[in-house]
Amino acid sequence: MRKRRYAIIGTGAVGGFYGARLARAGLDVHFLLRSDFEHVRAHGLVVESPDGDFALPRVQAYARAADLPAADVTVLAVKTTENGRLAELLPASLVGEGAVLVLQNGLGNEDEVAAAVGHGRVTGGLCFLCSNKAGPGRIQHLDYGFVTLADYAADGRPPGVTDRMREIAADFQAAGIPTEFADDLVLARWRKLVWNVPFSGLSVVLDATSAELMADPAARRLAEDLMRDVADGARACGKAIEEGFLRHMLGLTEKMTPYRTSMKIDYDLGRPMEVEAIFGRPVRAAREAGAACPRMAALYALLGFLDARNRARRGA
Amino acid sequence: MRKRRYAIIGTGAVGGFYGARLARAGLDVHFLLRSDFEHVRAHGLVVESPDGDFALPRVQAYARAADLPAADVTVLAVKTTENGRLAELLPASLVGEGAVLVLQNGLGNEDEVAAAVGHGRVTGGLCFLCSNKAGPGRIQHLDYGFVTLADYAADGRPPGVTDRMREIAADFQAAGIPTEFADDLVLARWRKLVWNVPFSGLSVVLDATSAELMADPAARRLAEDLMRDVADGARACGKAIEEGFLRHMLGLTEKMTPYRTSMKIDYDLGRPMEVEAIFGRPVRAAREAGAACPRMAALYALLGFLDARNRARRGA
Repeated sequence: MRKRRYAIIGTGAVGGFYGARLARAGLDVHFLLRSDFEHVRAHGLVVESPDGDFALPRVQAYARAADLPAADVTVLAVKTTENGRLAELLPASLVGEGAVLVLQNGLGNEDEVAAAVGHGRVTGGLCFLCSNKAGPGRIQHLDYGFVTLADYAADGRPPGVTDRMREIAADFQAAGIPTEFADDLVLARWRKLVWNVPFSGLSVVLDATSAELMADPAARRLAEDLMRDVADGARACGKAIEEGFLRHMLGLTEKMTPYRTSMKIDYDLGRPMEVEAIFGRPVRAAREAGAACPRMAALYALLGFLDARNRARRGA
Repeated sequence: MRKRRYAIIGTGAVGGFYGARLARAGLDVHFLLRSDFEHVRAHGLVVESPDGDFALPRVQAYARAADLPAADVTVLAVKTTENGRLAELLPASLVGEGAVLVLQNGLGNEDEVAAAVGHGRVTGGLCFLCSNKAGPGRIQHLDYGFVTLADYAADGRPPGVTDRMREIAADFQAAGIPTEFADDLVLARWRKLVWNVPFSGLSVVLDATSAELMADPAARRLAEDLMRDVADGARACGKAIEEGFLRHMLGLTEKMTPYRTSMKIDYDLGRPMEVEAIFGRPVRAAREAGAACPRMAALYALLGFLDARNRARRGA
């Protein structure tokens, strides 16, 4: 059997980590880069990790999507704030049966990808990964890493575990990355928002770590209320999340190593935040389904204001 | 008729402004000070104002409440965060029939004062005043200044316009300060929260002026939603605020000179914010009456977190 070819669209904290692990495992991996292209072409990638550091001195690096060879699996790992450029980033890298694995945060990204490449070839991947880009071509892996896979269904009817999901899972597991399958991609995305909405949002608005938020009774109660808003929104959209899951996520957060969320890093560096994918789309979907999610909507407005001010300052 | 004697408890942006105007008008005014005492005893007070600057080189200044002579009207103008010290600040300054005029922000302060001095002698005053303390004994008056007066009623039944309210109004008008009467103190306090809750709260959380908030569509919508939460809370407590008043306050805010709210000044200077009087008590009163006010409760939690962090940093 021929090794599957992977194209990594966006070689940062997420794409760089998973792509490097797949390449180290012997898969045929091609990396699309932007600002780090010259550095990575010359020096390759370095991953620092509690699982063991490793370097890939030579990788197949590209500066333009059009130059990538057709891949079996194209991994979309740019920030959702780049999704306006999907048409430019994706099509040239797909073979006939090629799939797109969407490793992005928030709701509705797979709809956008399906609109660009066709709905039969999109798989969603939910990454439970703490990693940062520490410098050009240098990925700092802090904790976790497992990926939940679920195929995209245009009609909303979960397709179950497909061959494509099994093939991707086999490659990831060969690279030492645990995977699991979810029946229902949209439900899985809502479940992930249960953590992301309170802790990404509040980390930015209050300039606080998850540990600081959990230690303050009022902030912790607000985080719980935000989780409840997410669950209410999901339920209105036909995706039930059990109360026990909220308690489970609070318990995990209590034990979590203090960690700067990627939204907070983006904010601190003056980069666009993924406000629409993580807040705007869920709030609108919930509202259309009759759930007001008032605290989540308020946090969306606060983040929208901060994001707009950051953009204005960048422009200035 | 003998001139009424006023004791000003807290000679800052509010108490310093009104007290100096009353003293200039010839009333017998006694000022309680803390950090500025030595300076004011030596140099008096200065008020800079668009209505005309003036100085009072000699004022009756005191460092301890116990030294104040018994007054007809004791003006409580310390921050509500000092109300734990009411027993120490108030009683020595009251004559037999003496009244306490409460020039403070938020809900429930008159209940605390009434508990300390008796419920028949408390009048609430709502100040529509933009002023700052610019230095020791130096008050910078920026805009407005009028005061709405309403007597406190322990049973919640509005007592109408009383002789005491008329006497205070006559003194304030003699000092060039417009006054009006409100039938219902608690309703008047809720109405004032319609502006204070969104614009004081968001000015701190977003580090923004009211003009910046009004210019951002999402933040403006959130401000309106917060106004609606206040109106819902008031209604649940039996105090109806008409929708037109919300629109009126938005219209005023659009035309307002950019102004740093007193809550924002407190936050920036690392001082305690009036979170309980302006947010905590209204949220709890509304909740007990069956209104969730979810966005206002969320903003209360955010401000509580920021206030606690400020306190911890002061302690450190």
